[in-house]
Amino acid sequence: MSEPIRIGLLGRGTVGAAFADLVEQRADAVEEATGRRPEIGGVLTRSDGHAEQIIESSDLVVELMGGTDPARDYVLEALRGGKPVVTANKQLLAQHGDELFDVARDAGVQLRFEAAVAGVIPVIRVIQESFGAAEIEKVFGIVNGTTNFILSEMAASGAAYDDVLTRAQELGYAEADPTEDVNGADAAAKMAILARLAFHTPVSLEEVDYDGIETVQPDDLAYAKELGLSLKLLGVAERRDSGISVRVFPCFLYRGHPLAPIEGPFNAVMVEAPAITEVTMSGPGAGGVETASAVLGDVVSIIAGDAPVHRVGERLEIVRDVPSAFYLHLEVADRPGVLADVAGVLGRNEVSVKSVNQRGLGNDARLVMVMHECLESHFRAAVEEISTLDFLRSPPRSIRVIEEEFV
Amino acid sequence: MSEPIRIGLLGRGTVGAAFADLVEQRADAVEEATGRRPEIGGVLTRSDGHAEQIIESSDLVVELMGGTDPARDYVLEALRGGKPVVTANKQLLAQHGDELFDVARDAGVQLRFEAAVAGVIPVIRVIQESFGAAEIEKVFGIVNGTTNFILSEMAASGAAYDDVLTRAQELGYAEADPTEDVNGADAAAKMAILARLAFHTPVSLEEVDYDGIETVQPDDLAYAKELGLSLKLLGVAERRDSGISVRVFPCFLYRGHPLAPIEGPFNAVMVEAPAITEVTMSGPGAGGVETASAVLGDVVSIIAGDAPVHRVGERLEIVRDVPSAFYLHLEVADRPGVLADVAGVLGRNEVSVKSVNQRGLGNDARLVMVMHECLESHFRAAVEEISTLDFLRSPPRSIRVIEEEFV
Repeated sequence: MSEPIRIGLLGRGTVGAAFADLVEQRADAVEEATGRRPEIGGVLTRSDGHAEQIIESSDLVVELMGGTDPARDYVLEALRGGKPVVTANKQLLAQHGDELFDVARDAGVQLRFEAAVAGVIPVIRVIQESFGAAEIEKVFGIVNGTTNFILSEMAASGAAYDDVLTRAQELGYAEADPTEDVNGADAAAKMAILARLAFHTPVSLEEVDYDGIETVQPDDLAYAKELGLSLKLLGVAERRDSGISVRVFPCFLYRGHPLAPIEGPFNAVMVEAPAITEVTMSGPGAGGVETASAVLGDVVSIIAGDAPVHRVGERLEIVRDVPSAFYLHLEVADRPGVLADVAGVLGRNEVSVKSVNQRGLGNDARLVMVMHECLESHFRAAVEEISTLDFLRSPPRSIRVIEEEFV
Repeated sequence: MSEPIRIGLLGRGTVGAAFADLVEQRADAVEEATGRRPEIGGVLTRSDGHAEQIIESSDLVVELMGGTDPARDYVLEALRGGKPVVTANKQLLAQHGDELFDVARDAGVQLRFEAAVAGVIPVIRVIQESFGAAEIEKVFGIVNGTTNFILSEMAASGAAYDDVLTRAQELGYAEADPTEDVNGADAAAKMAILARLAFHTPVSLEEVDYDGIETVQPDDLAYAKELGLSLKLLGVAERRDSGISVRVFPCFLYRGHPLAPIEGPFNAVMVEAPAITEVTMSGPGAGGVETASAVLGDVVSIIAGDAPVHRVGERLEIVRDVPSAFYLHLEVADRPGVLADVAGVLGRNEVSVKSVNQRGLGNDARLVMVMHECLESHFRAAVEEISTLDFLRSPPRSIRVIEEEFV
């Protein structure tokens, strides 16, 4: 058995605590995947622990303190000491990226930071690795969940900015001091990081122009709805002439734009390049467990080194008869009792009807039905029985229906 | 200077030729990123080249022949000889995955296959690496672009399946023999691969139940539209009790489902796990260049080994004054000549108006305008001038508008 990987954890707030839990829960899976078991070594909290000692005695350092001081010193110390670092600290990267990346490059040590941008969406890995050889033209999207929640709520309810902000704070989607989110500064830091990676050029935070959403009025959103537009706070980094433009601003999107349907505290990022056309990725913007999961993904990549050939566990049984909802279309004779007969067959087979529409007359009469979720074998048995009924003018047609509603 | 990486290319059809071109175009960028320059060594075509010789003399083998025979033999030979392999061959992986992965694992050699599933969407990397330590509950989505194009067209035009299929063939979105696409077999092979990776269990192609779209009728789509549903061919792999279910079937989605807006020859995949909630990724389903780009991403990862610290090129200029379209909201006095004055200011500043709505009367009068794209400095100058006009009741409000329409 090989030695465990000792993780030095700097910071034990919401994300830090969630990360420590996740490491414990997933240690077996990580060991199976990589051959080495992760374990939390030292933990630095506000009141306890000695940073230098923790770094010194770890194989890998996870920085979840936030802020740039003393996080910057600790990360530099770890990198210089040859310890790979995973961080979720966007301000640290946006403000001190040049220095940190130079030191990591010189030391030949990995510095990973998937959790710093766009929550659980793996945009850093995709830009750096999947599209590492593509000439990226544009990276843009919704990279702040707080503002997307506020704009979605304002559009849906017609309420004013201040009222919706208060609601967002109550629900935990906005901080007590929401300034950095609502004025665009948080999104600007994330766009500085994305621009740096996409275009292989230093980008400092001061070079990113940003506007926030504080001045958006309910009637802007009302007019937008009439025009078929939806309002998003967008971060955009793109090639322009021989340079690049990196900005954050509220923006109307026409219906049909891939980012238009992104509602609530979600993030979404699009990457455009000639050889890939475009790729859109979306998911929850933040949350302690989601951020911790992105951190753990980076930790696993560092432990694994080369991409492993995926592990195979025990063979799982293939389940074929699963519950589904169904649409059922029946061309029937136009006479009394037809619906009763059909409903009778369905009921006997434990299939419950959600809605029925009778359409057409005479030779065009038909039943269009939607079922509640039921075991597929029950539905198939019912359809087989229905297809023997003498009033059917053609074989029954059925299609599954998915009802889950997302944010 | 380090030695170049010699790539043995097996197959030179559409994707193979696009890959060879892309390697040439991006060789500099790959060398900068990884320290080693890729070059195509031997090429095996139908009429030319000797496979064993090409494999023997290469550092890395790219298999783009399609089919399982002789692709299987060549890939096994390469892996056993310690050469990493990149392939886009979904049938090969779905039918002979167990054997290939076992050999790769024993030889300690990478076998990568991002291009085999979901076109340019990096779903393989994301499942294996970003979510490598997550307990995935469900992977599902639209993994066949041909059928999604056909269903989108049927829904939009009301045309019959056969007519739309003919149109898809003319546009190059469907093969001359579309059987494997329209009957669901192609999607089934992709779902077998995704299920294997997501759940760490062997999944054979015969275990995937699939239905196609050949029997979908125009009136199914017409009723669906009335009900607010859209029809997709879905592949679903999910945990069920202590086993898994892997299926492909046409399915109605309610409005608001993240996959409902995916139209045309696009693919989209969702991954669900407790620690990540859900992530959705979408992009073009196929195309020679897009597939070649996914192959190159895998090649770069193999050359790079450990994830590199991203390279930095020369500093790109930050461009701040870029063209945008704008919405402009003016609360104005309700009197003649107001629109003419505003239009005059805009015109003098080279800002062209796309639409104007006059709303309200008296103290509620306002102009809601949308501009065509113009240089931001021009628009700002116009707004500054407008804000000095005496009939304005409050400061002008402006918001950018994005008009690009996607598929």
